Amino acid sequence: MPRMPAVEAAPLANDTFLRACLREPTAYTPLWLMRQAGRYLPEYNATRARAGSFMGLATSPDFATEVTLQPLERWPLDAAILFSDILTVPDAMGLGLSFAAGEGPRFAHPVRDEAAVRRLEVPDMERLRYVFDAVRSIRKALATSKDANGRPAGRVPLIGFSGSPWTLACYMVEGAGSDDYRLVKTMLYARPDLMHRLLDVNAQAVAAYLNAQIDAGAQAVMLFDSWGGVLADAAFHDFSLRYTRAVVAALKREAEGRRVPCIVFTKGGGGWLEDIAACGADVVGLDWTTDLGRARKRIDDRVALQGNLDPAVLFAPPDTVAREARAVLDSFGPAARPDGRHGGHVFNLGHGISQHTSPEHVAALVEAVHGHSRAVRPRPR
Amino acid sequence: MPRMPAVEAAPLANDTFLRACLREPTAYTPLWLMRQAGRYLPEYNATRARAGSFMGLATSPDFATEVTLQPLERWPLDAAILFSDILTVPDAMGLGLSFAAGEGPRFAHPVRDEAAVRRLEVPDMERLRYVFDAVRSIRKALATSKDANGRPAGRVPLIGFSGSPWTLACYMVEGAGSDDYRLVKTMLYARPDLMHRLLDVNAQAVAAYLNAQIDAGAQAVMLFDSWGGVLADAAFHDFSLRYTRAVVAALKREAEGRRVPCIVFTKGGGGWLEDIAACGADVVGLDWTTDLGRARKRIDDRVALQGNLDPAVLFAPPDTVAREARAVLDSFGPAARPDGRHGGHVFNLGHGISQHTSPEHVAALVEAVHGHSRAVRPRPR
Repeated sequence: MPRMPAVEAAPLANDTFLRACLREPTAYTPLWLMRQAGRYLPEYNATRARAGSFMGLATSPDFATEVTLQPLERWPLDAAILFSDILTVPDAMGLGLSFAAGEGPRFAHPVRDEAAVRRLEVPDMERLRYVFDAVRSIRKALATSKDANGRPAGRVPLIGFSGSPWTLACYMVEGAGSDDYRLVKTMLYARPDLMHRLLDVNAQAVAAYLNAQIDAGAQAVMLFDSWGGVLADAAFHDFSLRYTRAVVAALKREAEGRRVPCIVFTKGGGGWLEDIAACGADVVGLDWTTDLGRARKRIDDRVALQGNLDPAVLFAPPDTVAREARAVLDSFGPAARPDGRHGGHVFNLGHGISQHTSPEHVAALVEAVHGHSRAVRPRPR
Repeated sequence: MPRMPAVEAAPLANDTFLRACLREPTAYTPLWLMRQAGRYLPEYNATRARAGSFMGLATSPDFATEVTLQPLERWPLDAAILFSDILTVPDAMGLGLSFAAGEGPRFAHPVRDEAAVRRLEVPDMERLRYVFDAVRSIRKALATSKDANGRPAGRVPLIGFSGSPWTLACYMVEGAGSDDYRLVKTMLYARPDLMHRLLDVNAQAVAAYLNAQIDAGAQAVMLFDSWGGVLADAAFHDFSLRYTRAVVAALKREAEGRRVPCIVFTKGGGGWLEDIAACGADVVGLDWTTDLGRARKRIDDRVALQGNLDPAVLFAPPDTVAREARAVLDSFGPAARPDGRHGGHVFNLGHGISQHTSPEHVAALVEAVHGHSRAVRPRPR
């Protein structure tokens, strides 16, 4: 697919997120929230009702653009993330993705035997055109929209994303979410040859998919290894991280004259931090079970870190939210090091924001992160 | 409650498990399985059908004895574990435990507000007499039963157990299982004072409960911190480990002239291994996400380790089960160290055995663990 820049190259009004990803100095710690366009926002629910369904929302570039921008219109977040689902790629492979009301994703045609694995192919990226169209549409909207204060708040980078090869495999084999991963782990242990073939197809497909998002205008990309943490230690290395590494190695890393940072997030992956940090990504996402300061020491600022407030903190009163946010920032510590090198911290939750979150508490979070991180920077820039 | 030894002090025919817990030399690596008396066994399902319900099973010393011994009659496992539930203590506090068919546990009276927390008290241990009666009954049966080969297979130690204060709190506040722990974490962050009061009562109750199990004849005790791993790093230390430590400190550590080992298992706790290993327990249980050899290096044999095969491995063919079991044993390595000190390894799964497990695969596991560990011991004892 030829590169088609979606928009005139408008300079980014706010590139704090990209700079933190690349461990460059920033005036404050940038912030975005996993699942920031979601059910905790009344305006999201209104748009979703108009779209009729989750897939109706995700497959319409107009609706996807509308909901992607919604959280940015409320708060000065430092990045936008494409509104989509992690399972678009297996859907394009013909597995038939749907979302029943009140339930998680479901595949009509799960991959459960040798014949089904052999049939899998990297899908024609044309089948995912609605995603790339959404990326272009969001970039256009970001270049022109204004925030509540009338500033061009849209001028933040857009993050594209995909599920990791292993995480896609979990859903493809189980056919839905699972609490014991019995079917996918049975294939992994009983027929590792089939699992490797499946993961190899996934890795190629995910790399092509993310590269097409970058071509369409994504300024950073994130791989969600949501289920890497359910694997045994050796299996994580052989069946998850190996294929994450293959995807990262195949990514385009520059677009519009800037580096396109890559973020890898493995939920429950804190024990493998050093290995994940060596996978080629610029940024490693952490869930809330790992202390950020100790994580930083372990990787010695070789990559930036993203995270890691427990989303449940947002259920507490605003002053508690602010205190806990400051604790995360203080745990990371000053990005500038005495030796002249620089760490990078992108503030985020350790997992997607809950639908039960009050938007008022998000306001307290954004204010605390921006305010505290700016206040403790050694010299204002 | 006065100490009432249940049985004549019959010498243990097989004390391999107790010796491994205490890092003493053993002729092979002992093995038992979390939830070894469970739904994967047809004979268990038959007994449960006769009992009418899970609670009918757990509250009857006769039924509890019957199912506790069932796995030992099939395989030469090295320990028995009391058949009971981790939630007996809050049930005795008056919360009304029940198990709906096909669902998890549920409390009729969850603890959701200040008044409910203030009402909580350490229950009269008389309300848990059915548990202590079961312990006595199982000890009696273990002293006389024979295995498939006509040997006194029952002569293995009996493990008593409880949920940890934090894990009990999760169920007490949520009222059931949860996938986001919204209610209990909201209390933790919004009203830490209430959460500490609740945990303090739980810790006192759990210590009294385990000590009464030891008085009744339990030869080792295990604390299941099944939900410690859902906490943020700082919260784990303040709200889970602190109260686990309080329980361990209050335990009787000797009975019938032998040390009573204490095992602490935190699912998802691999990142906190050093801290957990310092809580006073003799043995730390590990789930499958941590490499056993690296875990052993981190704690330098200051405690024994229990684990840690992924229960999903048992879905694979028997030769794969055997290979993966050997890999766990090899990862731990020789218990005897060149410096003359000794490590301890108790083989187990990294979590409870699945109801979908074939008993034939368990046979392959038991054989592989006993056979391989015996074969690689430097000198047969």
